[in-house]
Amino acid sequence: MNLPSQLLEQAVEEFAKLPGVGKKTALRYVLHLLKQSPDELQKWSATINRLSEEIHYCEVCFAISEQTKCEICSNESRDHSTICVVEDIRDLIAIENTSQYRGTYHVLGGIISPINGIGPMDITIEPLLKRIEANAIKEVILALPSTMEGDTTNFYLNKKLSPFKLSISALARGVPVGDELEYTDEVTLGQSIILRVPYESSYIRK
Amino acid sequence: MNLPSQLLEQAVEEFAKLPGVGKKTALRYVLHLLKQSPDELQKWSATINRLSEEIHYCEVCFAISEQTKCEICSNESRDHSTICVVEDIRDLIAIENTSQYRGTYHVLGGIISPINGIGPMDITIEPLLKRIEANAIKEVILALPSTMEGDTTNFYLNKKLSPFKLSISALARGVPVGDELEYTDEVTLGQSIILRVPYESSYIRK
Repeated sequence: MNLPSQLLEQAVEEFAKLPGVGKKTALRYVLHLLKQSPDELQKWSATINRLSEEIHYCEVCFAISEQTKCEICSNESRDHSTICVVEDIRDLIAIENTSQYRGTYHVLGGIISPINGIGPMDITIEPLLKRIEANAIKEVILALPSTMEGDTTNFYLNKKLSPFKLSISALARGVPVGDELEYTDEVTLGQSIILRVPYESSYIRK
Repeated sequence: MNLPSQLLEQAVEEFAKLPGVGKKTALRYVLHLLKQSPDELQKWSATINRLSEEIHYCEVCFAISEQTKCEICSNESRDHSTICVVEDIRDLIAIENTSQYRGTYHVLGGIISPINGIGPMDITIEPLLKRIEANAIKEVILALPSTMEGDTTNFYLNKKLSPFKLSISALARGVPVGDELEYTDEVTLGQSIILRVPYESSYIRK
């Protein structure tokens, strides 16, 4: 694709580096930006600049943070004896948005995936073990994706965590709330029968 | 969606303004940016800043340009007696990439669409008429989208251009090159029979 201006071409190349964005979509984005006022564009540019300077990773849980310790880790009212292990910050945000969890997190920054060349040493498992060693942790919740890689990582973590005196739990798996049984996939439905719970504990808690 | 950092939230809001981008995709983009080196991010920021300062619209054809006159309009080897009228710069780029056209362009910046409140005065039809009046234009090619709005604009332009001594043509419509007849929609296939051309002129010219 030849573009009528070198600067336009450069901007399109930058945007085409975003995940899932090709040259055509990138051009659409850049042309949209060009319709904005110069003020608006400078705000954009300044925000991206600040990202590079002000965003760090929390030294405790590796979540994104503007301080050395993130808001959750420095919040005294959270339960610091429970750690919820997630793959990345997006999963942390998803769980936070449920308002059902008051403990802390640990962001692995990936999951074990031999196919993608990601081993246990490439993610923050070592720091997690050190953190558990140094603090009075009562429970670790494994909140990893329900995929083969997630299961592998769960298995590895469970083995590494078993020497510690703590309870290890995992997210409940079953029929999604609001879903019709007929459209739930067979594996999930089968698991939800095997893992059935007493009726009293099956209510949705708000 | 609550995000763990205000700056992150601000960046996500900026990206969510892009066409077709929601908050989740915006977050994905921003998290991707955060994985880049500070140098890379500063390059991004600088490019966007330059967009606001250095990109202008060509005073002749309204294409995007870094000068007051775009590369095509200031290129002496192009045929300045032919104007190809397009809706926006993306269509100009698409036609340029075919390497089949050596004339100049006129970017309307939209098409007449009463539903969206866009009338003839909202797009660059007046400047086009003035440009034709002031220069020796032999041909105007209407290269607008094959939609109701495109047809309306074509009709309007044809009426406005008829007082001038020039030939007015439109893009050929028919079966796309490489397509199977069986998958071509009925209207296109029907039109391609009505508008059939002598066999000799049906070869693909390279």
